[in-house]
Amino acid sequence: MERLATDCLSKVRDARPLVHHITNYVTVNDCANVCICTGGSPVMSDAAEDVPGMVGLASAVVLNIGTLNPRTVESMLVAGKVANSKGIPVVLDPVGAGATEYRTACVRTILDRVKVSVIKGNAGEICVMAGMAGTVRGVDSGDAGDVAGAVKALASRHGCVVAASGPVDYVSDGKTVMELENGSPMMENVSGTGCMLSSVIGCFVGACGASAGSVASAITTFNVASEDAEKMCKGPGSFKTALMDCLFNIDPSTVGERARWNLCSNYTQ
Amino acid sequence: MERLATDCLSKVRDARPLVHHITNYVTVNDCANVCICTGGSPVMSDAAEDVPGMVGLASAVVLNIGTLNPRTVESMLVAGKVANSKGIPVVLDPVGAGATEYRTACVRTILDRVKVSVIKGNAGEICVMAGMAGTVRGVDSGDAGDVAGAVKALASRHGCVVAASGPVDYVSDGKTVMELENGSPMMENVSGTGCMLSSVIGCFVGACGASAGSVASAITTFNVASEDAEKMCKGPGSFKTALMDCLFNIDPSTVGERARWNLCSNYTQ
Amino acid sequence: MERLATDCLSKVRDARPLVHHITNYVTVNDCANVCICTGGSPVMSDAAEDVPGMVGLASAVVLNIGTLNPRTVESMLVAGKVANSKGIPVVLDPVGAGATEYRTACVRTILDRVKVSVIKGNAGEICVMAGMAGTVRGVDSGDAGDVAGAVKALASRHGCVVAASGPVDYVSDGKTVMELENGSPMMENVSGTGCMLSSVIGCFVGACGASAGSVASAITTFNVASEDAEKMCKGPGSFKTALMDCLFNIDPSTVGERARWNLCSNYTQ
Repeated sequence: MERLATDCLSKVRDARPLVHHITNYVTVNDCANVCICTGGSPVMSDAAEDVPGMVGLASAVVLNIGTLNPRTVESMLVAGKVANSKGIPVVLDPVGAGATEYRTACVRTILDRVKVSVIKGNAGEICVMAGMAGTVRGVDSGDAGDVAGAVKALASRHGCVVAASGPVDYVSDGKTVMELENGSPMMENVSGTGCMLSSVIGCFVGACGASAGSVASAITTFNVASEDAEKMCKGPGSFKTALMDCLFNIDPSTVGERARWNLCSNYTQ
Repeated sequence: MERLATDCLSKVRDARPLVHHITNYVTVNDCANVCICTGGSPVMSDAAEDVPGMVGLASAVVLNIGTLNPRTVESMLVAGKVANSKGIPVVLDPVGAGATEYRTACVRTILDRVKVSVIKGNAGEICVMAGMAGTVRGVDSGDAGDVAGAVKALASRHGCVVAASGPVDYVSDGKTVMELENGSPMMENVSGTGCMLSSVIGCFVGACGASAGSVASAITTFNVASEDAEKMCKGPGSFKTALMDCLFNIDPSTVGERARWNLCSNYTQ
Repeated sequence: MERLATDCLSKVRDARPLVHHITNYVTVNDCANVCICTGGSPVMSDAAEDVPGMVGLASAVVLNIGTLNPRTVESMLVAGKVANSKGIPVVLDPVGAGATEYRTACVRTILDRVKVSVIKGNAGEICVMAGMAGTVRGVDSGDAGDVAGAVKALASRHGCVVAASGPVDYVSDGKTVMELENGSPMMENVSGTGCMLSSVIGCFVGACGASAGSVASAITTFNVASEDAEKMCKGPGSFKTALMDCLFNIDPSTVGERARWNLCSNYTQ
């Protein structure tokens, strides 16, 4: 099964998918660079006037509400509508959903009006969105409850792939749940690794379609790179630099060989 | 006295204060990462719709006018009002005050409507705000006059702690003035080290309260890390990377041992 | 002729020009740091209320439409008008011109209302603007046609200096065309190297005036630094860090010695 990660990363490198982002201004530069290092081509544009033209050129759209405001939420709705009409997959990163009413409400509006292909949040956000025990502290995950159950419930409800990041990552398409065990604890010490992961997912669904397998492949590619970066770093500053280098240099076959995926049998009918 | 720096940094690491920022888009990513490396948890949100909910969760609020506009200034007033009503300390970084009339006017409005706990600027900004000789060149300090006198006068006028950064840093609570001698000249060669310092101060006042001692502890923590980073770097790029690493790795006891603080006796009644 | 690059960089280092930017939020931090490393002093401000005061203090203005919206385009027009009235050179980076109608229209509006001193784009953008064969893919250059012909035609039409970046860079003042051969292929693997180059050009025209020679000197300074950085790096992350270090450390005489400039005789009357 892990062989899929090798194939997906190879496809990203070949296709060089254009990934359109409407994202926050905190981590946007890292998202752009991570997108290049993965093998994609990033574009960021958030004016409603510009979005339809730019989305039309893209292979995937990433909507990240990290520093949302009414103007950019409106642009996200425009982007989602255009993407839906053209069959372009949409990745939603509901940053801070559950922390404030405004964020929760905006996520609800986006999910009501846009057919989202992938929802990727941290464990707290996903648990809150699934209506399960879980907390969000600012934009970081607080306590998480039954994460495997939450990804499955949310995926089933919205008919999409859902991923929850954390020390262990979970991915579900509403039928099965996968547990992904790669990664580095240094990820938590760098702002925006969650946002960066959404950009990596954008590259993968842009090149390989929006399946649980391509989302799991994206997460594992990023996580394997983080394991390499951890060995080269002296702290969060050099970790981030090394993460870009390692992601750029990683070989598709390495990702497949090192992937550690398990099917959560309790959650699989 | 320097022992205080050790205790304050230990408290930050234990409490992991959530620091809400309304700040500029130039240096925001570095502010977020510096906040994590210090021991805090950063959140950035500038929509008036989102700010009340987010501020309510925070231990401190940092307002930085680096790329101000009418929408974000309005959000700063909302954030300040909510913070004041809940007793959450507010740190104001008046970037470029004195360089343009608009910036000067916005700073005046914020100080009129929000009870600020700490004002942290560069020497030029603080001298201009205190009405003393001093200039601001874009967003950098120009010539500074009597900086020790300026921090004291401004602190006394607004009933808060005032810090002026520069080759030597000054901190006053309106009664005494401290001179802080740690730091690295490489700081000037990286954009946003002043903004980053305000985020570090946010972590400290969030965990230890808004006293001159906790502000001096924050400045010294950042400065001691910069001394370590200077030894590891080849230029401004690697200095910034090393600054994050060193801040993350620094031991509270080291900060206290290496702190070089003097009381400016001429300014102390 | 390459001696000019040495003299221009020396002037930048002596003058420390204040460069005002209205630019995108994706690469703005790198632009600020590159500006410092070159020898300038960056300021970013995009509120129409603040722009006139800030532009008045600047030696050059850089307008970059990477994440344009109606509010910031309006501020660009204000900035351009103030700059023109004071004889301050304006550098325009038409990011993504040709990719969407909105971007193309905004560039046209800016060129209609502001006297621009330098247009700097990638080869695709410049070819599209010159009405020649060329494509833009998101914000990256697609296929480029006759780039040397395009810079000359565009420079002649607008009475300004035009530069097109790519594996080989071209600069024209409408009469002659220069081909600049320095640089590193790693530049393409980092988001915003084009934006950074516009900031370097801002420093040079701010200190040395807006001639083809000072634009070529700026490009070559950045490119020679990139050659050094390439030797020190392990991937795009460490390349960007090294690029800042190398730009900061580069000696003006080195730039002149290593510059590889050719006059394109076919395009010179």
